[in-house]
Amino acid sequence: MQAASVDRSFYAPVEAELDELRRRLATVGDGGHPTFQAAVRHLFGSSGKLLRPTLVFLSARFGPTDDRETVINLAQSLELVHTASLVHDDIVDRAELRRNVPTVNATWNDDVALIVGDYLFAKAYALAAVLPKPEVIAMVAQTVFALCDGELGEVTAAPQLPSEAAYFERIELKTASLYAACCQGSALLADAEPEHVAALGAYGTNLGLAFQITDDVLDLVGDETEFGKAVGQDLAEGMATLPMIYAASNGDRDLAARIVAPGKSDDEVRELLRTIRASGGVERARAKALELHDAATRALTGLPARPERDALRDLADFVVSRVR
Amino acid sequence: MQAASVDRSFYAPVEAELDELRRRLATVGDGGHPTFQAAVRHLFGSSGKLLRPTLVFLSARFGPTDDRETVINLAQSLELVHTASLVHDDIVDRAELRRNVPTVNATWNDDVALIVGDYLFAKAYALAAVLPKPEVIAMVAQTVFALCDGELGEVTAAPQLPSEAAYFERIELKTASLYAACCQGSALLADAEPEHVAALGAYGTNLGLAFQITDDVLDLVGDETEFGKAVGQDLAEGMATLPMIYAASNGDRDLAARIVAPGKSDDEVRELLRTIRASGGVERARAKALELHDAATRALTGLPARPERDALRDLADFVVSRVR
Repeated sequence: MQAASVDRSFYAPVEAELDELRRRLATVGDGGHPTFQAAVRHLFGSSGKLLRPTLVFLSARFGPTDDRETVINLAQSLELVHTASLVHDDIVDRAELRRNVPTVNATWNDDVALIVGDYLFAKAYALAAVLPKPEVIAMVAQTVFALCDGELGEVTAAPQLPSEAAYFERIELKTASLYAACCQGSALLADAEPEHVAALGAYGTNLGLAFQITDDVLDLVGDETEFGKAVGQDLAEGMATLPMIYAASNGDRDLAARIVAPGKSDDEVRELLRTIRASGGVERARAKALELHDAATRALTGLPARPERDALRDLADFVVSRVR
Repeated sequence: MQAASVDRSFYAPVEAELDELRRRLATVGDGGHPTFQAAVRHLFGSSGKLLRPTLVFLSARFGPTDDRETVINLAQSLELVHTASLVHDDIVDRAELRRNVPTVNATWNDDVALIVGDYLFAKAYALAAVLPKPEVIAMVAQTVFALCDGELGEVTAAPQLPSEAAYFERIELKTASLYAACCQGSALLADAEPEHVAALGAYGTNLGLAFQITDDVLDLVGDETEFGKAVGQDLAEGMATLPMIYAASNGDRDLAARIVAPGKSDDEVRELLRTIRASGGVERARAKALELHDAATRALTGLPARPERDALRDLADFVVSRVR
């Protein structure tokens, strides 16, 4: 699996769709307020990993119906949902950097970021609304409800270390539901067999969980330049993640209290980073991400063998071995 | 028209639909995060004027198709769009009171209000997505784009007094587009004749403009207890409205500069309120609102004579004579 860490061949089968999607994302601001146009250029100027659209395009290959326009609409809609939620999350998290680029709130201000996020959500829904299957439209809406539930859970959480179960509930809402919607929604649009839709849904959910745990690990041990955002940010804010939960799982109440304390100094963050890294919590969290990766790839065995299935497996390998 | 100021008989023809809508609005939070449920109770617990849904229900009576469920969905969708945008606007405006009730940002905090607004927008779109006519779904999306354009125009405006034309452009985006969508969208769903759809659209646009000017006048001369929010708030923030533009229209640059200065003291606001009230700007703005009221009611002459047309006329009278 180490070799897979730089293997990005999973993009290959769907390069044409990704190119078209990039073109469309670049024009999302057209006709809107000049500040919205500028924000769109800012957000989509430097290309992200586009993992979610890649999942949509690959999953669409497992059904008999090949309606390219519809599938691109779903991919764009879900990528815009994702981007809108990042723009709003960055306000809540007071984040200044994402993908090595200043956030919208840092570049303009919180008010502009709030409205730009609303705009992107509206664009996402407008695209979803024209999808030919009501159950897929409902799935997009459910995904946004899940994102909101997860985010509300975060901002209203009591200042104490959550249980492992509570952590998983939160990342299922905040991350995995969107991954599952990419895979399942696309398979539904392609009229895939019910058991293939279910397999892709299970793959997406497990992949999303593995992705988020890996993200949370990188926040503790990543290289800032590679990772593209500040390391130790979750810790600074007192936002408890799985490696921290594992680090304090020996019942160390003092450590738990220090982890969830908000507004830490840089020195406290550095000291805590050392403690957590030394605890083995990071390794345990990585192992958990690998377990979920394995569950995701196991789900793929329920799909017909074809290049797109290999690509989904490679994408899963990438997700847990990435450094950014 | 003075007598009409307390006449609310325009609600009568659609009371049954309004009751059903109130029931549905009260359950919007069901199944969501407890904080979202609490926010929904907070927002819809004290009933607002429900002018927009009333417009939807009355306008639906001008076409042959009577699909009650669909029309209630449109009314609920647009009322949720309106509520979501208020919740987000109140963050941007740092508003503490609305309809005599503390805002969501004041009751919880900005982070919760941000997510609650996202949630309400998502609920609105989920309802719009199931409407049977794509052009009405597109109209709901266009309305949100207009709201965002208007709000972005507001937060990025240069600190100078706008022209009358720029003011009208902003309130058309921020207020009138939603009023027009209520009337036009509903008429489209009812399969009304194209000229009746157009008449209702013209009525809604002019009514929305008249509503917003009246709101802006009340912000300067309203009774705080009646109005339900702080008087002089626009002025305190340096948010220029029509009566202020008229007050400074004699070329008084000093007055213009004082109006748009942000973060004024209470004393400065009181002093400016006196100056503006003495300028005749308020009367001129009221006269403009009446002109638009007349344009709205003139548009109604293109509709068949029936009780709902009288109700729309009474509603227009109410909008310009209201004190809150």
